[in-house]
Amino acid sequence: MPIDSVAAADFGSCRYRGLPAAATDPIYGSASKLPSSAGDEFLFSSRATMGGDPMSNPNGSNVTELDVTHWPGVNTLAVSMNRVDFAPGGTNPPHIHPRATEVGLVTRGELLVDIIGSLESGNRYYSKVLKAGETFVIPRGLMHFQFNVSKEEASMVVSFNSQNPGIVFVPLTMFGSSPPIPTPVLAKALRVDAQVVDLIKSKFTGGY
Amino acid sequence: MPIDSVAAADFGSCRYRGLPAAATDPIYGSASKLPSSAGDEFLFSSRATMGGDPMSNPNGSNVTELDVTHWPGVNTLAVSMNRVDFAPGGTNPPHIHPRATEVGLVTRGELLVDIIGSLESGNRYYSKVLKAGETFVIPRGLMHFQFNVSKEEASMVVSFNSQNPGIVFVPLTMFGSSPPIPTPVLAKALRVDAQVVDLIKSKFTGGY
Amino acid sequence: MPIDSVAAADFGSCRYRGLPAAATDPIYGSASKLPSSAGDEFLFSSRATMGGDPMSNPNGSNVTELDVTHWPGVNTLAVSMNRVDFAPGGTNPPHIHPRATEVGLVTRGELLVDIIGSLESGNRYYSKVLKAGETFVIPRGLMHFQFNVSKEEASMVVSFNSQNPGIVFVPLTMFGSSPPIPTPVLAKALRVDAQVVDLIKSKFTGGY
Amino acid sequence: MPIDSVAAADFGSCRYRGLPAAATDPIYGSASKLPSSAGDEFLFSSRATMGGDPMSNPNGSNVTELDVTHWPGVNTLAVSMNRVDFAPGGTNPPHIHPRATEVGLVTRGELLVDIIGSLESGNRYYSKVLKAGETFVIPRGLMHFQFNVSKEEASMVVSFNSQNPGIVFVPLTMFGSSPPIPTPVLAKALRVDAQVVDLIKSKFTGGY
Amino acid sequence: MPIDSVAAADFGSCRYRGLPAAATDPIYGSASKLPSSAGDEFLFSSRATMGGDPMSNPNGSNVTELDVTHWPGVNTLAVSMNRVDFAPGGTNPPHIHPRATEVGLVTRGELLVDIIGSLESGNRYYSKVLKAGETFVIPRGLMHFQFNVSKEEASMVVSFNSQNPGIVFVPLTMFGSSPPIPTPVLAKALRVDAQVVDLIKSKFTGGY
Amino acid sequence: MPIDSVAAADFGSCRYRGLPAAATDPIYGSASKLPSSAGDEFLFSSRATMGGDPMSNPNGSNVTELDVTHWPGVNTLAVSMNRVDFAPGGTNPPHIHPRATEVGLVTRGELLVDIIGSLESGNRYYSKVLKAGETFVIPRGLMHFQFNVSKEEASMVVSFNSQNPGIVFVPLTMFGSSPPIPTPVLAKALRVDAQVVDLIKSKFTGGY
Repeated sequence: MPIDSVAAADFGSCRYRGLPAAATDPIYGSASKLPSSAGDEFLFSSRATMGGDPMSNPNGSNVTELDVTHWPGVNTLAVSMNRVDFAPGGTNPPHIHPRATEVGLVTRGELLVDIIGSLESGNRYYSKVLKAGETFVIPRGLMHFQFNVSKEEASMVVSFNSQNPGIVFVPLTMFGSSPPIPTPVLAKALRVDAQVVDLIKSKFTGGY
Repeated sequence: MPIDSVAAADFGSCRYRGLPAAATDPIYGSASKLPSSAGDEFLFSSRATMGGDPMSNPNGSNVTELDVTHWPGVNTLAVSMNRVDFAPGGTNPPHIHPRATEVGLVTRGELLVDIIGSLESGNRYYSKVLKAGETFVIPRGLMHFQFNVSKEEASMVVSFNSQNPGIVFVPLTMFGSSPPIPTPVLAKALRVDAQVVDLIKSKFTGGY
Repeated sequence: MPIDSVAAADFGSCRYRGLPAAATDPIYGSASKLPSSAGDEFLFSSRATMGGDPMSNPNGSNVTELDVTHWPGVNTLAVSMNRVDFAPGGTNPPHIHPRATEVGLVTRGELLVDIIGSLESGNRYYSKVLKAGETFVIPRGLMHFQFNVSKEEASMVVSFNSQNPGIVFVPLTMFGSSPPIPTPVLAKALRVDAQVVDLIKSKFTGGY
Repeated sequence: MPIDSVAAADFGSCRYRGLPAAATDPIYGSASKLPSSAGDEFLFSSRATMGGDPMSNPNGSNVTELDVTHWPGVNTLAVSMNRVDFAPGGTNPPHIHPRATEVGLVTRGELLVDIIGSLESGNRYYSKVLKAGETFVIPRGLMHFQFNVSKEEASMVVSFNSQNPGIVFVPLTMFGSSPPIPTPVLAKALRVDAQVVDLIKSKFTGGY
Repeated sequence: MPIDSVAAADFGSCRYRGLPAAATDPIYGSASKLPSSAGDEFLFSSRATMGGDPMSNPNGSNVTELDVTHWPGVNTLAVSMNRVDFAPGGTNPPHIHPRATEVGLVTRGELLVDIIGSLESGNRYYSKVLKAGETFVIPRGLMHFQFNVSKEEASMVVSFNSQNPGIVFVPLTMFGSSPPIPTPVLAKALRVDAQVVDLIKSKFTGGY
Repeated sequence: MPIDSVAAADFGSCRYRGLPAAATDPIYGSASKLPSSAGDEFLFSSRATMGGDPMSNPNGSNVTELDVTHWPGVNTLAVSMNRVDFAPGGTNPPHIHPRATEVGLVTRGELLVDIIGSLESGNRYYSKVLKAGETFVIPRGLMHFQFNVSKEEASMVVSFNSQNPGIVFVPLTMFGSSPPIPTPVLAKALRVDAQVVDLIKSKFTGGY
């Protein structure tokens, strides 16, 4: 009796606190390998040991995800992680996580970590340059970004209170959706001419 | 024994399902008036009967909030509402609610209602012109907007599954925070020159 | 890897915030059509534009449901809606929603909206005649009803903080269950003779 | 720093898992005595050892409550209990708990335990005579009742997954609210004449 | 359309409040029998009427579980129960329930019921001998045990606010895991020599 | 109107997503300092930059807590963190967090990270030596420990999905509670003589 999904209603699977789901479990499907022995990659992960290349995109940053898609062991446990690497001057551009609060640790270098409050706060801007070892918290659903203000590479590891926090990169969402948001809408929203909108749009035709 | 706050842990106040808190309740403070009789404004509200002036700001839209600050009766009940009025061509600019999913009803006129999925969906753009009587749902934390595509005024009433959903207006948050986000950060994020950023910033010096 | 059900543990499906489930998704089964394009009936619904005939049953009211069964787009999002239409003198008889708090908007006409508190409140009776544009909130699990006190038709649109709030119509549940509640039980509960119980039971043999 | 109320957001108070709140705690107020030593009535209760007199009201049953008002130790823990005693022929009349699922144990005698499903189930009626030692579950918000079908006294102890489940006695709520529901509303809802409604109302003028 | 798993996101299945899942439901699988009629073992259970033999193991106690595996009717309802029987001198050894708060009723005899607070409380030890009819609450995740201090058998029935609370027996987990925890780790943790650890380990080679 | 506590019912304070509570806020009391400006220690913390002395106690490890007591910024946000430092051969002895799942990152050195499943899994023992950069997840309420198997110091930073996860150190709770658990109870539970119990107890008279 596969009861993983219903146990999820209790905020945590019974099975995942004991023996993980077998290969034939309909919840995981045939692609799921059976965690076979102590020491395997089920409750542990090496995925964050190597970051990606921050220069592979215009942002100068790279996100290595450890959400439920990449780390099945967090399934039903309402947690996940990310590692982010930054080139000098690189940014993890303004974004929000629609389904999680985030806590983070700067693990290397220095990072400007900025959080902007909601309308109720007068869009208050919280900002600090954090060094390795310092931590930050991003309340659920608020816009935030990091910026590598130093001349060295920098990295951080963050954790979420959701197995699938999601990410909405604000510039990409506004200017690079599929299909695109009509230009008049964005011109009205940004209070500028259509040419300004189209200029920015042209920067996101390549996506992320 | 004021147990409203602890009862909130059960997702719903004991007291608010019976007799509301008295004036001296420390949770509500002295400013709270005692709901006195059946028929008063406690579980009922007339606040949505009159919308605000949509022409009082550059967006051409006006939000009348019925969250817990404006409608104490929803306290601990994990619901709230808003009425939004639109001038012709007016927009409720791209925004997110950090703490709630929203369902809405167009009550007058026609509105373009658009929702943009997260990165995982390829920033998929959902879009439809809705007439009075049609409904829409905005998954928690996703960016969305409405635009009055007609030559008549339009209105909608929306509901949230939080007593305090919050709102993050995207352009205002990026370009009108207090204090402002540094221009180089936004130039990097938007992939444009500082002048473009400063131009847009200049449009939000007056706030919302 | 179909993870919709487990993602539900995070209070919202990952997939439904991006690309919806395909036709072969085991969660939805083969009867589920693939939401094909922006503008379709996935995150939008036209179902509330037309109400049902309030004279088709003895109550003089008709409920058009937009819960997860009728609007798959709300799946995992903890919201749903209903439209209710009333003939003059019609009533949405005393009922409770076992799994949701409700907020409502009178959209046409005038409605007496009544809510009765729990035993703890001394069964306090909240009551008000609401006009179009006015709103109300029904705390989770409390008995309530609406009654069209005018000579015109009336309508309301309500929202729930559950995708499947359920409904327990009190008279129908007491007097028209399947099989019926034994008459002696109801006679004892209502403190009347069996004939009175049987009289009321006879009115509900046709069901809703 | 009294953080009990905020810790409630984590589904359980920090303080209550260690040293309980002091007498001056604003959450509990001055009426709260300090749990002083192991063995006191904080995490333990003797309240259910003695039931009340089931003949003191027309129902022939008596409820001894152990919710957060009567057992402060369950505060923030999302659990509570009740003991109910039944005279022969006594009933715990049809009622719902607006904020909890209930599990119960018959501790003495025999009880008819009945549960009626929601409209979606066709108001399906689940029914069984349970002997001492047998158990039952009442899904959240559904109407249910117990009836002592034997010639001996009977008792049960039930538990809830809320510290304050609340109770809505259906006949009392319909016919004995304060102030009363207008007779024409109930006549319409029950599909009977006003005299029948007024007859039943007259039985509840004395309340519970 | 099998929506049980997703409805779980609303804290309670729609289906289980009405007609239960059929035999072919993919969530329950073919082993699941169809609850056929009112009065069956779906919302009711006789499993707690007979306890197990407390002398069948070294603890002198026996647990009869009524969690979702043994009582499918509690599925999605966030409740479950246990009956525990004790021989004279028997103990339900120190254990924790990782996913639930527990409330309990002593149904026969006398039991020492002990609860130890977390580090924050200075590991405060709550302790009381309870007689039949007395109740206790165990905050989620705290270590606790019962001990039959009398010369008669004793029993209790407990309820949880999870359909699958889980159990971690502390001595068994430390000294009888599979494979075993390395002795040097336990010696360091317990601040004793390896021989002491190995002595205790030898007592748990037979398991529970 | 201080509504922080009630907003907590919505899984996140309104106020904390905007302007933090003032010094006179009854929820925080007079000891709470007003977060004064962007860049302060409200949403940021330097507390994890310096670990404690792992040789100051018999375990050879030191925990630096960043829960809500030490980092008020996480209040109502359902997250918190810890830094733990290990001497060579040091251990974070077997413990459980009663109210949270944990994810962790080894930041320095090598650590044996071990997790023991519940009874349902046969007390399955998950074990791996993790190097700096590797991560692990501890399902809510399960017993686990870390052990520094190298000759160098080691450190880790962990995150919780609760602002106040709590900690139950198993040996300390069993053998060093206040007042102590009676020796016969522990002798019965561990299946050894009283002398063995008293020997271990003697090691914990100094506490943690």
